[in-house]
Amino acid sequence: MNERALITRLRARIPAAPDWVLTGPGDDAAVLTSARGCVEVVTTDALVEGVHFRREWPRRRHVQGALRTDALRTGAFDIGRKAVAVNLSDLAAMGATPRALLLSLSLPPDFPVEEFDALIDGVVSLATETRAPLVGGNLSRSVTGLHIHLTAIGAVRPRRVMRRSGARPGDRLFVTGSLGAAAAGLAALSAPEQPGSDEILNAHLRPSARLRTGFIVANNRAASACMDLSDGLADAVHQMCEASGCGADIDARTIPVHKAATRAQALSGGEDYELLFAVPARRVRRFLAAVRQAAEVPATDIGVCTKALDVVLTEDGVARPMPDGFDHF
Amino acid sequence: MNERALITRLRARIPAAPDWVLTGPGDDAAVLTSARGCVEVVTTDALVEGVHFRREWPRRRHVQGALRTDALRTGAFDIGRKAVAVNLSDLAAMGATPRALLLSLSLPPDFPVEEFDALIDGVVSLATETRAPLVGGNLSRSVTGLHIHLTAIGAVRPRRVMRRSGARPGDRLFVTGSLGAAAAGLAALSAPEQPGSDEILNAHLRPSARLRTGFIVANNRAASACMDLSDGLADAVHQMCEASGCGADIDARTIPVHKAATRAQALSGGEDYELLFAVPARRVRRFLAAVRQAAEVPATDIGVCTKALDVVLTEDGVARPMPDGFDHF
Repeated sequence: MNERALITRLRARIPAAPDWVLTGPGDDAAVLTSARGCVEVVTTDALVEGVHFRREWPRRRHVQGALRTDALRTGAFDIGRKAVAVNLSDLAAMGATPRALLLSLSLPPDFPVEEFDALIDGVVSLATETRAPLVGGNLSRSVTGLHIHLTAIGAVRPRRVMRRSGARPGDRLFVTGSLGAAAAGLAALSAPEQPGSDEILNAHLRPSARLRTGFIVANNRAASACMDLSDGLADAVHQMCEASGCGADIDARTIPVHKAATRAQALSGGEDYELLFAVPARRVRRFLAAVRQAAEVPATDIGVCTKALDVVLTEDGVARPMPDGFDHF
Repeated sequence: MNERALITRLRARIPAAPDWVLTGPGDDAAVLTSARGCVEVVTTDALVEGVHFRREWPRRRHVQGALRTDALRTGAFDIGRKAVAVNLSDLAAMGATPRALLLSLSLPPDFPVEEFDALIDGVVSLATETRAPLVGGNLSRSVTGLHIHLTAIGAVRPRRVMRRSGARPGDRLFVTGSLGAAAAGLAALSAPEQPGSDEILNAHLRPSARLRTGFIVANNRAASACMDLSDGLADAVHQMCEASGCGADIDARTIPVHKAATRAQALSGGEDYELLFAVPARRVRRFLAAVRQAAEVPATDIGVCTKALDVVLTEDGVARPMPDGFDHF
């Protein structure tokens, strides 16, 4: 199929846009009204075949006593949805409301049109749920591998923006949800003989962004800093401390490790699209009320920001340096 | 080099941002103030190694009577600059002023750090010249080939936006610059024994976007429709007519074919980042004054929009159907 035919297919799969989209796909660029009283929040992220995902995972299983190898296909629908989720997670961390998406796809020569449709449907499904319409994009070929580059555009009131750099000594550190399930799911997918529960496979294949939690906490000015956990908790704590000019003391036993994950996966596995917040002590109640109001996942107090610049993990009174995060690269 | 080290290198190469950038690279997302009284214009485009460019072109030449093969390297600086130019060309076509760029790079395993630096310098050089700072991005690995996905964000006053769909029967069609040089340059690069003049090689490797022309024409409301010529003149005329619900009659002998190009290259070669305008007859003077004021390249009257839906190329009184455009895909 040529580019024009694919674009026609794509446009047929996109529902009518909300009223802030003045010009959607089909022109040289898309046109959006500005959100009144807001600043713009923009981010881009990519999922690359063979780096961030595979389209097929080999599976071995015993069928009537014999070892059989077959394949678990990662649905293109899920890949499209995840490409959106990882971008929305960055907007969530800033406290922003999503407004629009741009999709730049590079398709390998053998890419089946049914998978193209499913990929677009995955993008559009999460775009529609979060009211972040797909307003434009670009299709190109790839020599090998599917590349999905997505840009998300959001808005937030200027005094509500959360950044990484706002944490101060004495602030409590909170993390949403439970950690390590995505890494455990990836480990199960990578080991052909491990079945892996649906829950951990879903944590890897179908992550959610904590948009409501990020927005409501920001809107209540309940946190001094926030970032998402795309590269793992250890990385997030390091980054937030570095940006804020403080250190942190994390209580190892309070980390909400997912029941199917190891602590190492929870700390450094990456791809948990949860949020790390720094919360001034006098705002903890307000913060917890905001998290409850968002009704996504609970938040857990895992430690405190310190004046000393070290980032330490304390267990049974013994402090050791926090390990490094996951390097996606 | 790992991701963190490359990001540190990248950030060191980015100059201080203008005042509308509230948060630049280094947070989960970038934050921009909205342009007062403007709507947002957003677009994304990609350059993929092996599809849109090569990092090396084989060259054959006679040295002291013997045929020698060596390579012309496409500088990573030029590739980075071109990735920006092709996006800015889309903003130019809407009449928008650039405000910010987001860069999502996928780097092949063997990518030298010197080329990384040069690529970023190329992006930053055009970003700086056009006051469209690089405010964020993403680095990932690629299994093979360099992928450069770029998003450009611009602004325009709402009643100044130019779209493809505004052309009306009777409007004159104008095209900027001369056409076909980029295709001629690509043909020379693809034929190892052809030297190719610097002018046509530059047209392919170092295109410019017609930002001033697009902005000034739009600001004077001198055109009823506009689009860029990324996929060639023939494609642009077809697309504008389809979007506008009209046809066109192009006078073949008026097409400004570059002196080193063929007419086929001018019509369908693609990658001429010039602009096609539809101009109501009573606005032609105003349009030409705006083009002169922009002082980039002249514009040439190449034909007229028609009520009949056909797109025809007329020569010596004989009308034949306009060929199809270049399919990048």
